[in-house]
Amino acid sequence: DDEKFWSKKDMTLEKTSKFALENALDFIALGFKPENTKIIIDTKNIKTLYPIAAQFAKRINFSNTKAVFGFENETNIGMIFYTSLQSAPCFIEDMPVLIPFGVDQDPHFRITRDIAPKINKPKPALIHNIMIPALGGPKGKMSASNENETIYTTDSPEVVKKKINKYAFSGGQPDIEEHRKKGGNPDIDVSFQYLRIFFEPDDKKLQQIHDDYKSGKMLTGELKEILIEKINKFLAIHQQKREDARSQLDEFLFKD
Amino acid sequence: DDEKFWSKKDMTLEKTSKFALENALDFIALGFKPENTKIIIDTKNIKTLYPIAAQFAKRINFSNTKAVFGFENETNIGMIFYTSLQSAPCFIEDMPVLIPFGVDQDPHFRITRDIAPKINKPKPALIHNIMIPALGGPKGKMSASNENETIYTTDSPEVVKKKINKYAFSGGQPDIEEHRKKGGNPDIDVSFQYLRIFFEPDDKKLQQIHDDYKSGKMLTGELKEILIEKINKFLAIHQQKREDARSQLDEFLFKD
Repeated sequence: DDEKFWSKKDMTLEKTSKFALENALDFIALGFKPENTKIIIDTKNIKTLYPIAAQFAKRINFSNTKAVFGFENETNIGMIFYTSLQSAPCFIEDMPVLIPFGVDQDPHFRITRDIAPKINKPKPALIHNIMIPALGGPKGKMSASNENETIYTTDSPEVVKKKINKYAFSGGQPDIEEHRKKGGNPDIDVSFQYLRIFFEPDDKKLQQIHDDYKSGKMLTGELKEILIEKINKFLAIHQQKREDARSQLDEFLFKD
Repeated sequence: DDEKFWSKKDMTLEKTSKFALENALDFIALGFKPENTKIIIDTKNIKTLYPIAAQFAKRINFSNTKAVFGFENETNIGMIFYTSLQSAPCFIEDMPVLIPFGVDQDPHFRITRDIAPKINKPKPALIHNIMIPALGGPKGKMSASNENETIYTTDSPEVVKKKINKYAFSGGQPDIEEHRKKGGNPDIDVSFQYLRIFFEPDDKKLQQIHDDYKSGKMLTGELKEILIEKINKFLAIHQQKREDARSQLDEFLFKD
């Protein structure tokens, strides 16, 4: 979460450290095991990261970061240095590395792969994950910094219901009559997309919802109701596990 | 010594860390006390330095470093970030700070003073020290990276003698006859300058050497002989203290 510190004026390192730990609770709640999972926080593990980052930083110049990230002369020098820190965890242990990441982080790991052979390290392999659309529509990505566009794992059932009903971008028609006639568009409907990506593992059921919504048989409100129920069912269990995870957190933290 | 890592292609962090510890031995030998003296090494104390450096880095952009240090698009991003780390030790403790430094480091501490109020810290006060001329002449500064231009605190008496006789830039005339007639120029003579800066605390004696050299009464060889004897007398004691300092080194190192 350091990148938020560099890119947002009012963000403090205290806040980003807290975010990192809160995110960690979600990982633990999802079943990651401390034997296989180490959480690295730049400010906390800088003793391990910095010497590796320094090897990287020496081999990247401002022009490279300009070309890859579109940095400008007004970019702060922490943000400029940051890609070195982002690369460092790949080389803490001397073994092949696989990095799953949101596709927006691709430029960082392109640089990582470019530099790795120059410091006699194996290139990490990459898995690009799609971005989750924001509630507001398929064009934005879900981002923690925009409250109304995002379902947090800590949201209450009422908040989830309100956010989906109020903000989830709909592929439906302006009124019921027209919807029944023309049908909705599940490809741009955010509620349908969340079901597809996260909450409806049964492909047949998903196809049924798709067809019913597209034909106009299912209304936007009904689709949203399905999603709200699924999310809240998931969150009820997740939030319990997430609270239980607090006592385990320390086991997951990487020790320099 | 990190700056050498960033600026020199073949320099490693292992070497710069070793340099830092070797430099530390000289400080200890000169009588600094562990109660008042803490040695901070960027790679070793990064846990303390990084969060402070980050506050700085966020408030400096590439344009600033371009204006202050003459950085270019080809400057590596470690060097770009480095001024933040150079500033950090001034703010480890919340008290007024006085920084004595070689005048070539002035740009770093100008930035430090500019940023300090923006992070609610007092501006450090600065003492600018002159650079010691290189053996080769009054235009260069003595630099550890140029062996023949520099007397190291670890040089043997023979090496000191050879370096002064062979490399110390002379303000004298091409031959003895001319020297006796026209006299030498102590203002550009490196041996005289070393006596002035370091090795002749008695102002009257120094003035006598100055006048004798200027009048041609004292030859360059005689002047060099005085300097060689002074340096070797100093180094004999210093090198002994320097070796004794090894066992004390750990007491001086800053602990995060």
